Amino acid sequence: MTRIAVLGCGRIGVMHAANIAAHPRARLAGVYDVAAAAAETVGTAHGARIFRSAAEVFASADVDAVLIASATATHCDYIEAAVEAGKPVLCEKPLDLSLERVELCRRRIGDTALPIMLGFVRRFDPGHRAARQACLDGEIGDLHQVVITSRDPAMSPDAYIEVSGGIFRDMTIHDLDLARFMLGEEVVSVSATGSRLVDPALMERCGDYDTTVAVLTTAGGRQAVIVNSRAAAYGYDQRVELFGSKGMVLSGNRRRNEVTKHVGSATNVSTPLLHFFIERYAAAFDAEIGSFVDAVENGAPVEVGFEDGRAASILADAAFKSVDEGRTVRVSEIA
Amino acid sequence: MTRIAVLGCGRIGVMHAANIAAHPRARLAGVYDVAAAAAETVGTAHGARIFRSAAEVFASADVDAVLIASATATHCDYIEAAVEAGKPVLCEKPLDLSLERVELCRRRIGDTALPIMLGFVRRFDPGHRAARQACLDGEIGDLHQVVITSRDPAMSPDAYIEVSGGIFRDMTIHDLDLARFMLGEEVVSVSATGSRLVDPALMERCGDYDTTVAVLTTAGGRQAVIVNSRAAAYGYDQRVELFGSKGMVLSGNRRRNEVTKHVGSATNVSTPLLHFFIERYAAAFDAEIGSFVDAVENGAPVEVGFEDGRAASILADAAFKSVDEGRTVRVSEIA
Amino acid sequence: MTRIAVLGCGRIGVMHAANIAAHPRARLAGVYDVAAAAAETVGTAHGARIFRSAAEVFASADVDAVLIASATATHCDYIEAAVEAGKPVLCEKPLDLSLERVELCRRRIGDTALPIMLGFVRRFDPGHRAARQACLDGEIGDLHQVVITSRDPAMSPDAYIEVSGGIFRDMTIHDLDLARFMLGEEVVSVSATGSRLVDPALMERCGDYDTTVAVLTTAGGRQAVIVNSRAAAYGYDQRVELFGSKGMVLSGNRRRNEVTKHVGSATNVSTPLLHFFIERYAAAFDAEIGSFVDAVENGAPVEVGFEDGRAASILADAAFKSVDEGRTVRVSEIA
Amino acid sequence: MTRIAVLGCGRIGVMHAANIAAHPRARLAGVYDVAAAAAETVGTAHGARIFRSAAEVFASADVDAVLIASATATHCDYIEAAVEAGKPVLCEKPLDLSLERVELCRRRIGDTALPIMLGFVRRFDPGHRAARQACLDGEIGDLHQVVITSRDPAMSPDAYIEVSGGIFRDMTIHDLDLARFMLGEEVVSVSATGSRLVDPALMERCGDYDTTVAVLTTAGGRQAVIVNSRAAAYGYDQRVELFGSKGMVLSGNRRRNEVTKHVGSATNVSTPLLHFFIERYAAAFDAEIGSFVDAVENGAPVEVGFEDGRAASILADAAFKSVDEGRTVRVSEIA
Repeated sequence: MTRIAVLGCGRIGVMHAANIAAHPRARLAGVYDVAAAAAETVGTAHGARIFRSAAEVFASADVDAVLIASATATHCDYIEAAVEAGKPVLCEKPLDLSLERVELCRRRIGDTALPIMLGFVRRFDPGHRAARQACLDGEIGDLHQVVITSRDPAMSPDAYIEVSGGIFRDMTIHDLDLARFMLGEEVVSVSATGSRLVDPALMERCGDYDTTVAVLTTAGGRQAVIVNSRAAAYGYDQRVELFGSKGMVLSGNRRRNEVTKHVGSATNVSTPLLHFFIERYAAAFDAEIGSFVDAVENGAPVEVGFEDGRAASILADAAFKSVDEGRTVRVSEIA
Repeated sequence: MTRIAVLGCGRIGVMHAANIAAHPRARLAGVYDVAAAAAETVGTAHGARIFRSAAEVFASADVDAVLIASATATHCDYIEAAVEAGKPVLCEKPLDLSLERVELCRRRIGDTALPIMLGFVRRFDPGHRAARQACLDGEIGDLHQVVITSRDPAMSPDAYIEVSGGIFRDMTIHDLDLARFMLGEEVVSVSATGSRLVDPALMERCGDYDTTVAVLTTAGGRQAVIVNSRAAAYGYDQRVELFGSKGMVLSGNRRRNEVTKHVGSATNVSTPLLHFFIERYAAAFDAEIGSFVDAVENGAPVEVGFEDGRAASILADAAFKSVDEGRTVRVSEIA
Repeated sequence: MTRIAVLGCGRIGVMHAANIAAHPRARLAGVYDVAAAAAETVGTAHGARIFRSAAEVFASADVDAVLIASATATHCDYIEAAVEAGKPVLCEKPLDLSLERVELCRRRIGDTALPIMLGFVRRFDPGHRAARQACLDGEIGDLHQVVITSRDPAMSPDAYIEVSGGIFRDMTIHDLDLARFMLGEEVVSVSATGSRLVDPALMERCGDYDTTVAVLTTAGGRQAVIVNSRAAAYGYDQRVELFGSKGMVLSGNRRRNEVTKHVGSATNVSTPLLHFFIERYAAAFDAEIGSFVDAVENGAPVEVGFEDGRAASILADAAFKSVDEGRTVRVSEIA
Repeated sequence: MTRIAVLGCGRIGVMHAANIAAHPRARLAGVYDVAAAAAETVGTAHGARIFRSAAEVFASADVDAVLIASATATHCDYIEAAVEAGKPVLCEKPLDLSLERVELCRRRIGDTALPIMLGFVRRFDPGHRAARQACLDGEIGDLHQVVITSRDPAMSPDAYIEVSGGIFRDMTIHDLDLARFMLGEEVVSVSATGSRLVDPALMERCGDYDTTVAVLTTAGGRQAVIVNSRAAAYGYDQRVELFGSKGMVLSGNRRRNEVTKHVGSATNVSTPLLHFFIERYAAAFDAEIGSFVDAVENGAPVEVGFEDGRAASILADAAFKSVDEGRTVRVSEIA
């Protein structure tokens, strides 16, 4: 039984707290948020301790590990504090918007043996994972192309967009990690294209894009194509296609049930897609906690580590640079 | 090149005439209809001879074979005349509404070696045929159950219903033949249920049903379930399911294209089903002509013969008797 | 928080105990089984009390309600004891193999105001429920036909079959209840067909069938077709089709994920169906507990009551009588 | 009735000759091939004239129009000769491997009023066309992204690859035209990525690629992603996805029938994709002839003209330049 404290009680922290509380091998050791009311609501709901500071969390003997779901700017600080306190970490993405900060953190935590796990939850999705396993099992031969379609159901609030670091760092970063997970070879170059079609004014103001394509290439020539949009009217569109020399495997969208309607001139009408990440990746978030507990309790290697978080951030930076300069950017140019 | 004359220029006769005219191994030898104008339209369209009587057709040296698509009451007369004239026959279903007339015809044509083929077109549908082949190839082990869903897109005109002989004889008869084709064993009993839900007044007046289920059993215990309705708002629903000891094979509905729409809360919205039999079974009607030409030119055995037509009519009678008497009817009670 | 004790710790009792233990509004008050070891295993796993007799359960002040998952022959005894003790009941199907025993129980419990709920879990399946709701909402117009396909993944053990009461009472009974739930009108007649194809020797010995079709008709003429097999090589096949004057709604099979494979000549290869009822109806079993808690805590009417259990048993008897006598049996003949 | 002569009797010329011969509004006026035997086979099969030279075709008063299906290097010569002879042209893609030759041809034919149609057959596919129409009808709002997946079933013969002009000119060119057809705005830039994974040695020798991604951007910011492979083990993969502000429409792969198999642990096993372009685009090739006849007989504007052929060739050149230089290439750099 691993006692995990949650730092940050926003939407995703609330979800993590509930998942930990319900997990057979974890216990919610407590919660903390800069907004005391947020922490109080969550803590009370689960009968868990409400910490008054992050320092209190790190100092507590009743906390075996921490889950960092606070604002991005605090991630590296908390990771460093956790390492100093000897507490394993499960940290939400991204590590930081600035690669410099990530590098500094990397140096500071050095070669710690503590589990530092990144919350790239899609790696734990049963469908995506089964698709990858089929590939590893040779069912599609040599992997040639990965095609990831990833579209949010609706534009995030302006306030979020303004500080998110841009689409490649706040949204695509999940797909960049997923592409790395699927490709099985290090990415050497990135070519990206960005447009402003959903909310051109907002995107213009933030120097951001809402409609993008990123193409990654590995040393061996494998390609990953990531097609993103910040707003899909039909829901949260999450598809992964692995294409190889002997076939193709697809991990498709999920729905709440298998009901179809057939009326007038429309047939096979299916239910909406599961609305957003908390529903769509519910099983994955649960498996993520399980994987973290394995690492904490049994010393199993973390399935997604600090270096994976850093690599995804590098690819995000490369994508922005590629759009800015209208050229393919080699990863070695970034870091 | 087989020269085929078409008797009867209603909707299905017009279609057959066009199929024959376009067939690489057949030629439209001419057309006849009691309504001279109908024959003239079709004949002119294809540059084919317009016969002034059925007798003229049977007497013509330029006619190698006849396709009977006239009113049901004329089928047996024409078959007998064709046999007398030594001309092979492809006859639309049913042979006759009266089993007595069918028996008389059977005696009259005796053991003719001429091809007498029945137009049970569904046997020639590529999908249904591939499903059956999978079964014959042992892919689903021993066959246990056949489930046929067969629903017309809309109620036929009153005038048709009034003289059709009832749903089992005008509509289910195709499914009864298809069930026999799939079952691979003779049917020994029939249990049917009939309701009046689409147009109760009309059905009541005609002593007919518009919503029915028929369950057939073979000597070996195999079951076929036929689910019918005279009116499906979403189109012409034609599905066949073969279930066996090692698996199941389904032949599903067909659509004009593979386009799906995903908008708002409805996803995977597919195009309507192919509207009705002429579109849905276009490939089957074409293959049927080819099969008939094979029988005429090469002496290949007809794939669906007079005895198949008689057997389906017997099952239709058994179905009506089953509904009337509220019991399972043994086929041996009918004939 | 409703404290529920579980009577019977076989496969389904074990599952119910776990569901109750995990339910946010229920607590596992204890477990009992005639085999003390079985109760001990389950009780220990959940840190719940292990009762030494059923009487002890009914007498306990710490038990708010009971879930009966013991052998069928004990169901009515336990229901009667629970009513006497003033404890609400959630009872697994069927009430009893004998309608006489059911009638006796009915008289004994009289017009108790206590919630007596039957475990017809399929009513709580999100897909089946959404299909029914679409029908109630008028999306398919007037309901005409219900088609239920229900096939077990494999034959149950001989020992189970020998005392199960026969396919209509042990397996179809779920579909009979589901048909009633969907039809929205009382069933007035049953016509059933039974074959012995999966294990003819066993079926012969038990006077049972493994391959059946049952057709139910309501007073208004609505039809329900239930297609059953005791062994489907491709898994647990659970489909419901509702057909009405304006369209059709289907509740289809469920799979563990949405992965498809495309290799060589086979495309769109999907994963197996969820294996059996515990997986397939996991969400439904959970919702069932919630519904029972609602009835216990808030006095909400039970969604599936004693009369529903009795009605399904009557239909099962009618189905056997129909097969035996080769005729349509009116429900009024049975009870 | 338009009398069309076919120049070039290779695989695609043979198909076109048969389509013309079977078309209700066209007649096969004759055939020509540098290999006399090839022409003789086709001509004899259809009872059509066998021309001994291209000049003879252009001079014939019995030829209303020509279909050019000869070697790519002859396309522009024949177009020029046809224009001089006053005969409308339907020309297979591409116009030429060299843009200079295309420009020269363009100057030579000047502003001829004769129909000069390009054989970009995918524009005539009923599915792709219905998808585009849904977009034009506003069903998906403003178009944001077009995703085209286009994979050949197997690597073409070495001899073809060696002279094909490279993947963007021989294969992607169809997708480039389809993207233009769907985008509804002119493409202003191209960013392409190429790998050698299917047959690295051959690709290396020819300076070509077998696995590519091309991203096109319009002036308005719309994006088209084209994912190509020269060899898909599961068949000819042809999918088009249109994504807009209000939804998405997909035109999917087609199969010969709607049969699915469910055995052991594999469910929903579908039949192979239609094998290659002649089968997959059969309806489109037929519609293409009809569209050409409309242009010839009624003076309807050609649906795909010389400028479309030139535009696609420019995009193909831009794609190669993009791969070579590792940067996004503006179309204005090419022509």
